[in-house]
Amino acid sequence: MSRVLVVGSVAFDSVETPFGEVDDALGGSALFFSTSASYFTDVDLVAVVGEDFPEEPIDDLEDRGVDTTGLHTQEGETFRWEGRYGYDLNEPETLDTQLNVFGDFHPELPEDYREDDFVFLANIDPSLQLEVLEQMQGPEFVALDTMNFWIDNKPDELREAIEQVDMLLINEMEARQLADEANIVQAAQHIRDMGPSFLAIKRGEYGSLLFTPEGTFFAPAYPLEEVYDPTGAGDTFAGGLLGYLAREGEFSESRLRQANVVGGVMASFCVEDFSHNALQAVEQKDIDARADQVERLVDFESIDAIE
Amino acid sequence: MSRVLVVGSVAFDSVETPFGEVDDALGGSALFFSTSASYFTDVDLVAVVGEDFPEEPIDDLEDRGVDTTGLHTQEGETFRWEGRYGYDLNEPETLDTQLNVFGDFHPELPEDYREDDFVFLANIDPSLQLEVLEQMQGPEFVALDTMNFWIDNKPDELREAIEQVDMLLINEMEARQLADEANIVQAAQHIRDMGPSFLAIKRGEYGSLLFTPEGTFFAPAYPLEEVYDPTGAGDTFAGGLLGYLAREGEFSESRLRQANVVGGVMASFCVEDFSHNALQAVEQKDIDARADQVERLVDFESIDAIE
Repeated sequence: MSRVLVVGSVAFDSVETPFGEVDDALGGSALFFSTSASYFTDVDLVAVVGEDFPEEPIDDLEDRGVDTTGLHTQEGETFRWEGRYGYDLNEPETLDTQLNVFGDFHPELPEDYREDDFVFLANIDPSLQLEVLEQMQGPEFVALDTMNFWIDNKPDELREAIEQVDMLLINEMEARQLADEANIVQAAQHIRDMGPSFLAIKRGEYGSLLFTPEGTFFAPAYPLEEVYDPTGAGDTFAGGLLGYLAREGEFSESRLRQANVVGGVMASFCVEDFSHNALQAVEQKDIDARADQVERLVDFESIDAIE
Repeated sequence: MSRVLVVGSVAFDSVETPFGEVDDALGGSALFFSTSASYFTDVDLVAVVGEDFPEEPIDDLEDRGVDTTGLHTQEGETFRWEGRYGYDLNEPETLDTQLNVFGDFHPELPEDYREDDFVFLANIDPSLQLEVLEQMQGPEFVALDTMNFWIDNKPDELREAIEQVDMLLINEMEARQLADEANIVQAAQHIRDMGPSFLAIKRGEYGSLLFTPEGTFFAPAYPLEEVYDPTGAGDTFAGGLLGYLAREGEFSESRLRQANVVGGVMASFCVEDFSHNALQAVEQKDIDARADQVERLVDFESIDAIE
């Protein structure tokens, strides 16, 4: 079992969906990622919060096997995001973003984090993702997430970071934008030509596509009867994926396929309630049961050749 | 091996996509369906064309094992549809519809068609779908397709028809509309409560979901590098699905799952060119190869329980 390092945000989210709303709920990519990954392995977390951030959620993370030595508390307020989803629960409308202490964030990795073998560079400024990579001592597997904002505003730094990682995780729309190609199979090829051997394209309720040197894998999403809030689903997916790989300590084709299924399963819990409420209440047997259901969801007998 | 009956349209389509355009190309639900189904079994076709419809495509269908006794030629012009797709290649914008002879269509089934065991009621006026059902002598398996226009304009007739069929095939958006429910799992339950034991929800490039009394199955779409024209993909899907079931002569859970995969494979050929050009050029080995690829696309080892 290897540890996994995550560098990202810890934040307060205020979210409105057709099914309800929350104010100043716990959020941020590093929070969702580490909660999810903690079901599989130990996590080292690097992020920054303000003096207004409470102790309890940090203690909760520690209880889950998340090392928070790298979670710095800085003078000022914690990063806040406010957004609203429509009935389709796809992309949210951002109503307000207050970077606060996150605006001056420069990740400083504790000495022992630098030896971690599995790394997740959550969706932050690619310049900061590069700063993390410079501090690492030869990790085995680095995955990076990004978004349209960085594709538009820091294209050079982003390309430099993408060149150096093993895996890119990205939404379908953003994959098209990054590759400047509408067809998703061709977009995937373009992106893998930029550097990463592995590419996971996230398609929300439709699941995810994994592109590797050995082929293409489709991990379906678990069909849910209730979806309350998709915030954090992508980071939760990444947490399951990287957490599972780190637990197994390898990233063969077979492990990567399983890891993508596990990521989808973890995301399916995340969206069933606001913040990471449902995610952190999950028991390991629930994860196993849902992974079995996903296996049955795509199970069919080989089709006999046509005569 | 059973025969399959299809009742629908044969038309001329003029289609514009970002990749090109065609004028008065062969189209219509019954044409796409029967071309697709003909790879698996013999087909009985009921539709109407005008005096302007050429002989050659009818001969081509006959050569494929499609009986066209039920394809009536009537005074007047053939049904014409004109549409345009944007880059996302989802729903087309309809530019023009000329029903022509299709406006007075009342399906008259040749005597021997009435004994067919597998029936596809393509997307036509539900009153006509009911007329077909009245003429049938106890088919084993009836599937019905419909669209938003009939949900809005003939809700009572549509519900009456849906009550009587074994399977409904419908787009995701239209499933939500028919059930008046945004969540697709709940929408599926509502629709199956209306009568059909089986429900296939078509999700375009994301594949299809099959809901049965035994559970849910997800058939992924084959990821294509080139998509030219999605016109007819839904009917081609239905043709593969029903054609495969009719070939096997049964509709167990296992066969239905395979049939949904086969439907998706046939649809993947359909969209690679305009009209049914790519579809009718397919060889049986191509179908087998793509079915194998779909099987590999979703293949993963069982995930070990979390300790």
